[in-house]
Amino acid sequence: MFGKIALIGIGLIGSSIARDVKALGLAKDVTISTRSADTLKRAEELELGTSYTVSALEAVKDADLVIVSVPVGASGAVAEQIAPALKKGAILTDVGSTKASVIAQMSPFVPEGVHFIPGHPLAGTEKSGPDAGFEGLFTGRWCIFTPLPDTDADALAKLRAFWEALGSRCDEMDPQHHDKVLAIVSHLPHIIAYNIVGTADDLETVTESEVIKYSASGFRDFTRLAASDPTMWRDVCLHNRDAILEMLARFSEDLAYLQRAIRWGEGDKLFDLFTRTRAIRRSIVQAGQDVDAPDFGRHGAPKKD
Amino acid sequence: MFGKIALIGIGLIGSSIARDVKALGLAKDVTISTRSADTLKRAEELELGTSYTVSALEAVKDADLVIVSVPVGASGAVAEQIAPALKKGAILTDVGSTKASVIAQMSPFVPEGVHFIPGHPLAGTEKSGPDAGFEGLFTGRWCIFTPLPDTDADALAKLRAFWEALGSRCDEMDPQHHDKVLAIVSHLPHIIAYNIVGTADDLETVTESEVIKYSASGFRDFTRLAASDPTMWRDVCLHNRDAILEMLARFSEDLAYLQRAIRWGEGDKLFDLFTRTRAIRRSIVQAGQDVDAPDFGRHGAPKKD
Repeated sequence: MFGKIALIGIGLIGSSIARDVKALGLAKDVTISTRSADTLKRAEELELGTSYTVSALEAVKDADLVIVSVPVGASGAVAEQIAPALKKGAILTDVGSTKASVIAQMSPFVPEGVHFIPGHPLAGTEKSGPDAGFEGLFTGRWCIFTPLPDTDADALAKLRAFWEALGSRCDEMDPQHHDKVLAIVSHLPHIIAYNIVGTADDLETVTESEVIKYSASGFRDFTRLAASDPTMWRDVCLHNRDAILEMLARFSEDLAYLQRAIRWGEGDKLFDLFTRTRAIRRSIVQAGQDVDAPDFGRHGAPKKD
Repeated sequence: MFGKIALIGIGLIGSSIARDVKALGLAKDVTISTRSADTLKRAEELELGTSYTVSALEAVKDADLVIVSVPVGASGAVAEQIAPALKKGAILTDVGSTKASVIAQMSPFVPEGVHFIPGHPLAGTEKSGPDAGFEGLFTGRWCIFTPLPDTDADALAKLRAFWEALGSRCDEMDPQHHDKVLAIVSHLPHIIAYNIVGTADDLETVTESEVIKYSASGFRDFTRLAASDPTMWRDVCLHNRDAILEMLARFSEDLAYLQRAIRWGEGDKLFDLFTRTRAIRRSIVQAGQDVDAPDFGRHGAPKKD
């Protein structure tokens, strides 16, 4: 599909792409670059590519497809670094969770003749690093492109075909809308999860060991998101600020309403909300976006002391 | 283990107890009672007990163990109803998620010579009703007793042995502490989950179909708790009000701090929190309280359009 692919960044996403590209034979050469010599060494041990370098500039030379998979706050620096070596006609894309910010950071450095197409595969787990990636991570998951006004249709079609080869379903939207959608379906849930786990950790009257011991009664569902990569999520918060602040304001307003209903014993208001939310779960399961098994199917899992 | 067990209420918890009692042969007779004739009929179709009646009073006659499994708001009414027929020496227990309120509601009606031992099995799923129960629901899960000052040690030992036979691990604490612990590990997470799903449902700029379609990027983790039984959770909110309001106040304070850090671009504060919470997830997995598989092991699940 491509002569040479350059992967800048080799964490969960980058290494999953590398594994799929290798398994499916989508490129002759796969050059992997990351700033950390240790991580690069690990990528080499895992045989994720065909060549390895700590120099992103070096990595993108002659590449037909360059995929930047770094925390969104580093996008601009990477673009500046690689720009001089990008080949005319190459496709440059990213996998960042925020799009307006990435476009603002990278666009100024993209040379004429290089097709910059921002992208975001909605896939991942709470693990991070090159060892966390796996073949098939993108199967059945959405990949959203936010093409720029002058995006070349053929380049977009080629990039789309690449992600489809990885098993993704593809969508397009404008960057601002992407950032709003992701603020509610992904960023707010992560921030809330981080926050509640932090609140529990700070209690004086309930010990941490009690929180852990009894976590299966609800709390543990939040801990998965709250175990996500801190650097990635710090950057998401800083780079989708406006949309996140809007969602947080709405969430807090709604929570104040709920809190008031609890204080004043307004059971009907509570019952109405609790009924409405049940329907959404059903829709998500019907849409094949979550497993139907109660308790995420965790009941079959072995229990230890 | 018991001659006759009476189960008042036959939802997820009651019907799971019934299934285990039957499978393990823990009682000669199991009488099932619930107010709804339809639900009672369903319990009979499922052959969950040995006799069935809509009269709770009738059900508890000659019972050696009476387990009340109703929404906590109904505990007082049930206690009042069954009190005249409770056998001297019988054990009366419940499974409610709040304990101080249940004790306040039920205690006044408990006749002399009946052993009232409040209990709370920390088990369940987001499903409800007699069909949602299953054998083994309590295996490896905690059951917390909040004995009263005059609780008979032999009766407590017998009840404990019963829950252990169902596979539970047992703990004891005072009712007020139970309510605080559960407020953070269970009640707050459910309320927050209900709230965020409600917030998403109310957006004008992001459609419900977008929320559903892209839910796998975080949001769906919250929808499981938000699909829990509305009546049960309305009652929990109303009957553990003080502890819940305290936890909500702490949560909101922490969220305001986080929101401020996002607004002012204080990445270090975000990074610190996001790092701290990751350690808690690790402890929960190490304690055997959650599966170690990334993404709750959902990646193996089939994906549909």
